[in-house]
Amino acid sequence: MSDIDQGTAYGMAAPSWDDELIEVEPGTPAGELLRRYWHPIATVEEATATPRLVRVLGEDLILFRDGSGKAGLVHPRCCHRGTTLYYGKVEERGIRCCYHGWLFDPEGNCLEMPCEVDGGRYRERYRQPWYPVQDYVGFVFAYLGPPDKKPALPRYDIFENLPSGFSVAADADNIGLEGDPTPCNWFQTQENVMDPFHVFILHAGFSENQFVAEMASMPDVSWHLTDLGMKSYQDRVLPNGDRFHRVTEVVMPNVRIVASPFVERYGPGESVAWTLPISRTETKIFSAIVVPDDFEIPRPLYEGRRWAELSDEEHQRLPGDYEAQVGQGAVTMHSEEHLAGSDRGATMFRHLFRSQVRAVAEGRDPLGVSFTESDARYEILAGNFLNP
Amino acid sequence: MSDIDQGTAYGMAAPSWDDELIEVEPGTPAGELLRRYWHPIATVEEATATPRLVRVLGEDLILFRDGSGKAGLVHPRCCHRGTTLYYGKVEERGIRCCYHGWLFDPEGNCLEMPCEVDGGRYRERYRQPWYPVQDYVGFVFAYLGPPDKKPALPRYDIFENLPSGFSVAADADNIGLEGDPTPCNWFQTQENVMDPFHVFILHAGFSENQFVAEMASMPDVSWHLTDLGMKSYQDRVLPNGDRFHRVTEVVMPNVRIVASPFVERYGPGESVAWTLPISRTETKIFSAIVVPDDFEIPRPLYEGRRWAELSDEEHQRLPGDYEAQVGQGAVTMHSEEHLAGSDRGATMFRHLFRSQVRAVAEGRDPLGVSFTESDARYEILAGNFLNP
Amino acid sequence: MSDIDQGTAYGMAAPSWDDELIEVEPGTPAGELLRRYWHPIATVEEATATPRLVRVLGEDLILFRDGSGKAGLVHPRCCHRGTTLYYGKVEERGIRCCYHGWLFDPEGNCLEMPCEVDGGRYRERYRQPWYPVQDYVGFVFAYLGPPDKKPALPRYDIFENLPSGFSVAADADNIGLEGDPTPCNWFQTQENVMDPFHVFILHAGFSENQFVAEMASMPDVSWHLTDLGMKSYQDRVLPNGDRFHRVTEVVMPNVRIVASPFVERYGPGESVAWTLPISRTETKIFSAIVVPDDFEIPRPLYEGRRWAELSDEEHQRLPGDYEAQVGQGAVTMHSEEHLAGSDRGATMFRHLFRSQVRAVAEGRDPLGVSFTESDARYEILAGNFLNP
Repeated sequence: MSDIDQGTAYGMAAPSWDDELIEVEPGTPAGELLRRYWHPIATVEEATATPRLVRVLGEDLILFRDGSGKAGLVHPRCCHRGTTLYYGKVEERGIRCCYHGWLFDPEGNCLEMPCEVDGGRYRERYRQPWYPVQDYVGFVFAYLGPPDKKPALPRYDIFENLPSGFSVAADADNIGLEGDPTPCNWFQTQENVMDPFHVFILHAGFSENQFVAEMASMPDVSWHLTDLGMKSYQDRVLPNGDRFHRVTEVVMPNVRIVASPFVERYGPGESVAWTLPISRTETKIFSAIVVPDDFEIPRPLYEGRRWAELSDEEHQRLPGDYEAQVGQGAVTMHSEEHLAGSDRGATMFRHLFRSQVRAVAEGRDPLGVSFTESDARYEILAGNFLNP
Repeated sequence: MSDIDQGTAYGMAAPSWDDELIEVEPGTPAGELLRRYWHPIATVEEATATPRLVRVLGEDLILFRDGSGKAGLVHPRCCHRGTTLYYGKVEERGIRCCYHGWLFDPEGNCLEMPCEVDGGRYRERYRQPWYPVQDYVGFVFAYLGPPDKKPALPRYDIFENLPSGFSVAADADNIGLEGDPTPCNWFQTQENVMDPFHVFILHAGFSENQFVAEMASMPDVSWHLTDLGMKSYQDRVLPNGDRFHRVTEVVMPNVRIVASPFVERYGPGESVAWTLPISRTETKIFSAIVVPDDFEIPRPLYEGRRWAELSDEEHQRLPGDYEAQVGQGAVTMHSEEHLAGSDRGATMFRHLFRSQVRAVAEGRDPLGVSFTESDARYEILAGNFLNP
Repeated sequence: MSDIDQGTAYGMAAPSWDDELIEVEPGTPAGELLRRYWHPIATVEEATATPRLVRVLGEDLILFRDGSGKAGLVHPRCCHRGTTLYYGKVEERGIRCCYHGWLFDPEGNCLEMPCEVDGGRYRERYRQPWYPVQDYVGFVFAYLGPPDKKPALPRYDIFENLPSGFSVAADADNIGLEGDPTPCNWFQTQENVMDPFHVFILHAGFSENQFVAEMASMPDVSWHLTDLGMKSYQDRVLPNGDRFHRVTEVVMPNVRIVASPFVERYGPGESVAWTLPISRTETKIFSAIVVPDDFEIPRPLYEGRRWAELSDEEHQRLPGDYEAQVGQGAVTMHSEEHLAGSDRGATMFRHLFRSQVRAVAEGRDPLGVSFTESDARYEILAGNFLNP
């Protein structure tokens, strides 16, 4: 019998994923955890007098900015007869439905019902479902969770007291994708942050070195829990004997703080990014970066061309994060995985995330949620450090 | 607690629609009501020797016209082996399947089975499922209901005894959409006919005045049941003191009789139209219009361009019936509506329609169904009237 | 009551298909029968150092050829973290995943785990799911069934001991479709081989004669079981009194052996083809043909143009096998069929196929499966014969 094939794909069990990690919709355990935090949903420039459709955590919403400069984020279907407010007209005080003219302010209050007697005697009874928003570091942040649990919007130290000549750039480019969403679940994008080993393979060993020489050797790696999430240390001894200590950080649940892999300078990281779950199978990274005034964020190029210009075969030859993560499928199949020692960062992050999903399900507040502005001030830990 | 946000979209119930209003498929209560009436399915010119795929009430069917001039409407799958008759050859006596050559007449009778002994000794046993059709006012009308309940095809007074120099134009343009279906449920298109208030907002107040000055002021509105359906009165006093009395009419279930909103002249309406439910989420309006001979029906233009040529942002700036109705979704969500006083026409039409759905479910004949040609003669009530 | 319409489509039952004939997925009765045979999945030239996605029996797989010339067919998701091996790098000894660099040989053995201690001390524990493949007559054949039931790959007499100046051409053109799959279930394509009557209608009587004069008259037809499947005889007396005896053959389950309908010469057929079930609704024919060296297989043309260049209306006017079979739907609806005497070939094939589905379900080996190379040598029966 020794010549019978072993390990073939015949009879493989149907694959499955882990709902507790990947769900984003309202009412799901993971979706309820995600709803306890503020999320960037667009740049401040994208909120205008022209209504804009945005999708966040699986919900379609309409973003606008009224004539007074106040941004609004509302349920798309008018609470009167259901016509989308995408075709609404934005006015000084709010947005007006095209069908019968009901006018709503950014908090959904109905201000006018022009086809009703007296312009709507009972208009206080009607309210367009809405969500609170705030502008910060160039993005509109929204809170889609239970109103009585609304936290303060976290503020990061590197964006306060900017040195002269520096400002914060809000980059909605989704790392080379020109604003298009990444067609996979957010979790496989986020857990990648705690996986420094892939840098050595995917970004250095596999095709061409996508970063710099300092990053191309195999580091010593360790992972540690923090007050707000977790971090990894990547330690390398450089050829000249210097010790290169790199720290990468995740703030729960979807903040990613990664110092530049191009290591232009040593010191704390200069950016904070958010992995937004658009829907269960769409993801987008928003990055706030401290840059010299008038600095233009360069477009990543592959052999001189933009990612979207590469042929299918070139993507095969030059895979990057997109190919590795979207290549896991719209949602990866956890049942087929075989995690090994180098996956300990992903394992820890999953464990941490799951513990917070369960904390919320049990009625507790999750990690990193603060209810006062003074508590919601975060110091970043990430950076590239030399001989620390 | 007063600063906790009120009325946010968090925790909204899952939306739902009202099946009793929106279903069109065979065997559904609303679908069975719709099947008790004749429906236009194509222009008479569209029934030719080249088989044509048409969809009506969610059913895919093949329309053709045989060599003798008789139109046929048959189930697409050949009753022999299931090949679509879309690839059939139309002959003098009917349509022949391309695969094994069975020939069917417009009533589905099998006339030839050329691969069988004696050309099919038992061919009388086989019949291609078919539906009866009739040509009228330039359209092919079909009856998809129970054979023993087939009514007479209604004829409208304005199309009989046409004045010299006038004829009936059959317009399948779907009001500016160049024949494309409207991608939403038919009911939200049809109930709009009983909603005169939206004219004041959507067509007059919102962007530009899409009609004429006479229509741009808020009317006094009332609604009334009729023998065949319902109607609305819209009364305005014109600046010169004249009383402008406009009547809009729905004949059950999907006939829409609307005098021109351009009010070129006063008097009874000059057209009858049908809101065809193509499928649960596709709709098309067919209009029969009395026009001077050789009159060409003008294409609606928006700022000089065709609807399909407008950019997405221009559709946002110039919304019309399409945006308002398709903007309610492929099927609107009745559970999220908040109807007000000005919606009384829609409410009455829903009530009327629902009562007829239930009448059919209980074995009664629905409103407006006549079984003799003499009874199936309808006078239209709609029009624009001056000082009536 | 005699004027009530008879036989209309009103109240037709919901249609259904016969699962036992059409399923292809793992674990389904028909899918398990299909998995007991070798199937061509690509040409040998299509297995290269660039990973290629192939779909077979509803399974997505990655085909490659390593640096030593050995073809490999593996499950697409890397057994480590699930990234598709489509973005893998093919090396001398196998394929390496882009994400963390695990290297697998063509039989799925894990050779390297570069991010693990010592390059993966426990790598023998991991195996990428794979399937065995063999090159034959210009195609890569794969076996997707239970390993302990793997049969020998059948070899056909006409491809052994080729006459000098002749070779075997591997044609993956899918009969005029330039390699594109046919969008319907494989069974309706395969049973067509046992349906010689359609030749007389579809290919001769319907539009233009697609073949030759010898084929254009109605034959006497009979069907017969064989040791490996079934065959049909089509006998015609030619105008000159000669007897033209044509034999068409199916080897279970999906081999189709059809002599040229252009009858360039008399004698045994010169090709063997396979109807590959790509998925439940995608099918492709691979043909191995004995041809003179350097012979180029001509593209079928319709009125001088390629099939894909014809307009929709031209396809209606010139239907062929594609229109007849795809015109039955993505999966035909067996419940709506009315089989007649001329369908006896299809009926017999369905009966034969069903008996083998059940044989496998009951634990027996299906028809035509041989476990030694010497037994797996098949003589073809098909051909065009004169005065036999």
